[in-house]
Amino acid sequence: MIETAKELEVYLRPHMKTHKTLEIGEMMAPSKSKISVSTLAELEFFADGGFDDILLAIPITKDKLTRLKFVHERKNISILINTVEAIDILDSSDRPFNVLIEVSTGYERTGIYVEEYQKIAKILEKLLASPNRLTFKGLYNHCGHTYLGEKERDETKRTKIEAMNRETVSKLVELRDYLERQFESSAPIFIGTGSTPGCGYPVDEFKQLDELHPGNYCFYDYCQETLGSCRTTDIAAFVLSRVNSVFEDYIVIDAGFLAISKDSPELNFGKVLAPNDDMFITGMSQEAGKLKMKSEETDLRTRFKVGDYVKIAPAHSCFTAALHPEFALFENGKFIKKISPCRGW
Amino acid sequence: MIETAKELEVYLRPHMKTHKTLEIGEMMAPSKSKISVSTLAELEFFADGGFDDILLAIPITKDKLTRLKFVHERKNISILINTVEAIDILDSSDRPFNVLIEVSTGYERTGIYVEEYQKIAKILEKLLASPNRLTFKGLYNHCGHTYLGEKERDETKRTKIEAMNRETVSKLVELRDYLERQFESSAPIFIGTGSTPGCGYPVDEFKQLDELHPGNYCFYDYCQETLGSCRTTDIAAFVLSRVNSVFEDYIVIDAGFLAISKDSPELNFGKVLAPNDDMFITGMSQEAGKLKMKSEETDLRTRFKVGDYVKIAPAHSCFTAALHPEFALFENGKFIKKISPCRGW
Repeated sequence: MIETAKELEVYLRPHMKTHKTLEIGEMMAPSKSKISVSTLAELEFFADGGFDDILLAIPITKDKLTRLKFVHERKNISILINTVEAIDILDSSDRPFNVLIEVSTGYERTGIYVEEYQKIAKILEKLLASPNRLTFKGLYNHCGHTYLGEKERDETKRTKIEAMNRETVSKLVELRDYLERQFESSAPIFIGTGSTPGCGYPVDEFKQLDELHPGNYCFYDYCQETLGSCRTTDIAAFVLSRVNSVFEDYIVIDAGFLAISKDSPELNFGKVLAPNDDMFITGMSQEAGKLKMKSEETDLRTRFKVGDYVKIAPAHSCFTAALHPEFALFENGKFIKKISPCRGW
Repeated sequence: MIETAKELEVYLRPHMKTHKTLEIGEMMAPSKSKISVSTLAELEFFADGGFDDILLAIPITKDKLTRLKFVHERKNISILINTVEAIDILDSSDRPFNVLIEVSTGYERTGIYVEEYQKIAKILEKLLASPNRLTFKGLYNHCGHTYLGEKERDETKRTKIEAMNRETVSKLVELRDYLERQFESSAPIFIGTGSTPGCGYPVDEFKQLDELHPGNYCFYDYCQETLGSCRTTDIAAFVLSRVNSVFEDYIVIDAGFLAISKDSPELNFGKVLAPNDDMFITGMSQEAGKLKMKSEETDLRTRFKVGDYVKIAPAHSCFTAALHPEFALFENGKFIKKISPCRGW
């Protein structure tokens, strides 16, 4: 992804939410600068870990302010807002925050639809009237719609995602140009977007952006594989476990939904790589996963035994990783060390 | 549940897996004795926390032995087995373990079907031949089938679950009687079953059992409510959050799947109690939940505002609780203290 951003001549602001560790954070942002985080806990963790220029990529609310300001005293923090009221919330800070307006080019969550020029202009108008407190930086977009629906992940997915990317750029550029015309006093307005599927199919038009901010690509997962963002061999996070019971037509492993998560039942929660890649997860309870063969089999008791090694590529590594108090880090098949993600909010 | 067990004159061995805290463990087992756990980490945590007579309610495998023996040196530990081979694994312990054979009266997971008399008898035969190492205690059953399928949770659910309970007792009693006839050398064979829906509809026949071992009832949840195990007012675990964005037809809250879990999409992942109990969770990303009204509404911007308090009863409290590094404990509406669950494996 570092190479992709370099070729496109845009900044890369990797999101830390998938792994939440200092070690992988440094792989994604070797300068330990310019990252995104999804919780105040991550903000504090990465700030304490030596990172700077951190974007808190959730809408600011009043209850977050005390902890936010405490970190902001020693680090450069950027904040997302999506209302005029949020400006008043940030009012009381002595040190000006960098502020981005969160917009949406298609994904329905916390961004204001880019088409709502008047609503966005009103926020910017108020922002620019508060030059001592807040520094307006630009427009932030999460192109979450590039994840597509389950049934849209067919052979045309590349075409679809590339079209979404072009549309996203064109909408952001149009909005930026409009705002720059309306508010000549504003400094140049940065525009950025990000999602691992979107950045997995980079288009030439991305050169018109200032920043990309994907996150999941540190691990990828089986969902990303179905989207074509990666191949199986690119996936870098696995649940390792063992078989604890073997029955005629199913086996049970020592990993249930607290190790794997219940994300993406339509993808059977993940891709089983061992003890046999012809297996799938048919059900889970808290600490037990039930695996069956995809193809017809006579008797699994002749093929598998208690203690057999299990390796599963999760359907959604962001969820699965967050369930684990530590990760075992491997390089070229060799165990390096255990690392601990941050947790909570 | 303590009262129910007393009335039925059976032991209660509450499962700790739902809350994983010493404090709630002591509420469920005031004598700090006779509990079930689902991981080695829980076993160590509760043993270190002063609990004794602990059942590790997952099948034993060789890789678990070192840690298991270390705890067993100072506490009374019971072990589940479902194969003849497991007996060899437990072979090397100096201090005899209490052993239960895991059977199943209907739930397909790690128990041996109660109908497989010969298979169970073979395990018991080998067990009784190892009197110095292993003490056979009885038969363990998890009646997980009482959770019913989604579409079976209709007005006949009480009848269905009570019938399952009676069938479970009758099958366990028959098997026990058979084994006691076959192995006269055996001490009396304990029989026990457990699940919160099963124990939520206790039948007179439960008096023929020795032990019940449900777990989820410490919190209950929205799923248990749909099963009739509890009422909404019995639910004791909630996700508290705040509204961070208000749009015309949806609001977004500061709680996504890492706070709520993705369990039970068919139940919309939980029951929204505030800011308005006519809302439901329509989607979640990692740190954001999207809520809509069930009934038609004109404009949510006139009803809700950023910062509004959110309260959600989770669909499955076992999963939701495990996502939180600490719980805020309330009694009669008053905040008491924060408590920390154990985590990992």
